[in-house]
Amino acid sequence: MKLHHILLATTATVVALSAGSAFAQFQKPEDAIKYRQSVFTVLGNSFGKIAAVVKGEAPYNKDEVAKNAAVVATLSSLPWQAFGSGTEGGKAQPEVWSDSAKFKSNAEKMQLAVASLNTAAQSGDLDNIKKAFGAAGQTCKTCHDDFKKK
Amino acid sequence: MKLHHILLATTATVVALSAGSAFAQFQKPEDAIKYRQSVFTVLGNSFGKIAAVVKGEAPYNKDEVAKNAAVVATLSSLPWQAFGSGTEGGKAQPEVWSDSAKFKSNAEKMQLAVASLNTAAQSGDLDNIKKAFGAAGQTCKTCHDDFKKK
Repeated sequence: MKLHHILLATTATVVALSAGSAFAQFQKPEDAIKYRQSVFTVLGNSFGKIAAVVKGEAPYNKDEVAKNAAVVATLSSLPWQAFGSGTEGGKAQPEVWSDSAKFKSNAEKMQLAVASLNTAAQSGDLDNIKKAFGAAGQTCKTCHDDFKKK
Repeated sequence: MKLHHILLATTATVVALSAGSAFAQFQKPEDAIKYRQSVFTVLGNSFGKIAAVVKGEAPYNKDEVAKNAAVVATLSSLPWQAFGSGTEGGKAQPEVWSDSAKFKSNAEKMQLAVASLNTAAQSGDLDNIKKAFGAAGQTCKTCHDDFKKK
C-alpha cells in the first residue's frame, strides 16, 4: 500500500468515525436534516444582511454587520455534524457522502473564510469586509454547486 | 392620561415599531416563521446537549458545554425580530401579538438567563452551570406555557 493510499484510507476512516458519532446525537435522519437546514436558514439570513450592505442596498452599520458576522461564524461549525451516514436526503446531493473528503474540505474552507469575515467585521473596515465577504460567498457557491440540489 | 398609561402607550408603540421594521426584512410571513423556528431548532439542539450533561446523561466536557452555551447565547437575540405583525402562525399562540409586552418581557428574561448560563459555562464551574441551566430552562418553560402551541 503506497503512502498516499494509507493517508486516504486514514482520512476516510476519520471522516466516517466522526460522522458516525455525530449522527448518534440525532434520533432520526429527519432530525439531522431539519437541524442542518435550520442552521443554513439562520446563517443565510445573517449572511444576506451583510450582502445587502456590501452591495450598497443597505447602509453600513458597524455593530449590525459585526453582529451578523459573529452569528455566521458561530453557526459555521455546526451543520457538518448533521451530515452523518444514514442522513442522506433533504437538499444534499449524494456526493456529500460519496465524496466526503471533498465535502469536508469545502466545509473547512468555508469556516476559515467566515472567520476572516468576522475578523474584518469586528475591526469595522468596510473595504476589508467587502473583500472577505466576496471570498466567503465564493466558498458557499463552490460547495452549493457540487453538493446542494438545484 | 396618567403616567403609567403614557408609559404603557409608549412601550406599545416602540414594540409595534420595532416589530414592524423587523418584519420588513422578511419577504413573506412564511419566511419569518421558518426563520424563527430554525433559530429555536438550532438553539434547542445546543441547549439539549447541555441538558444531557446537567442530568448526568453525558460526561462533562468544559469546551463542549462552553461552545454550546455560546451558541445558545448568540442565537437568543435572533428569533424575536421574526415575530413582527403579520407573521402570526406556526407554533406561536395569538397571545404573542395580543400580549406582546408580556412576550417581550419573557424574551428579555430568557436572554439574560442564557447570558448567565454562558458566563458559567465559560468559567467551567459545573455547579454554577447547573444552577444557571435550571434558571434558563425555567424561562423557556414559562414562555412556552403561555405563547407556544401544545
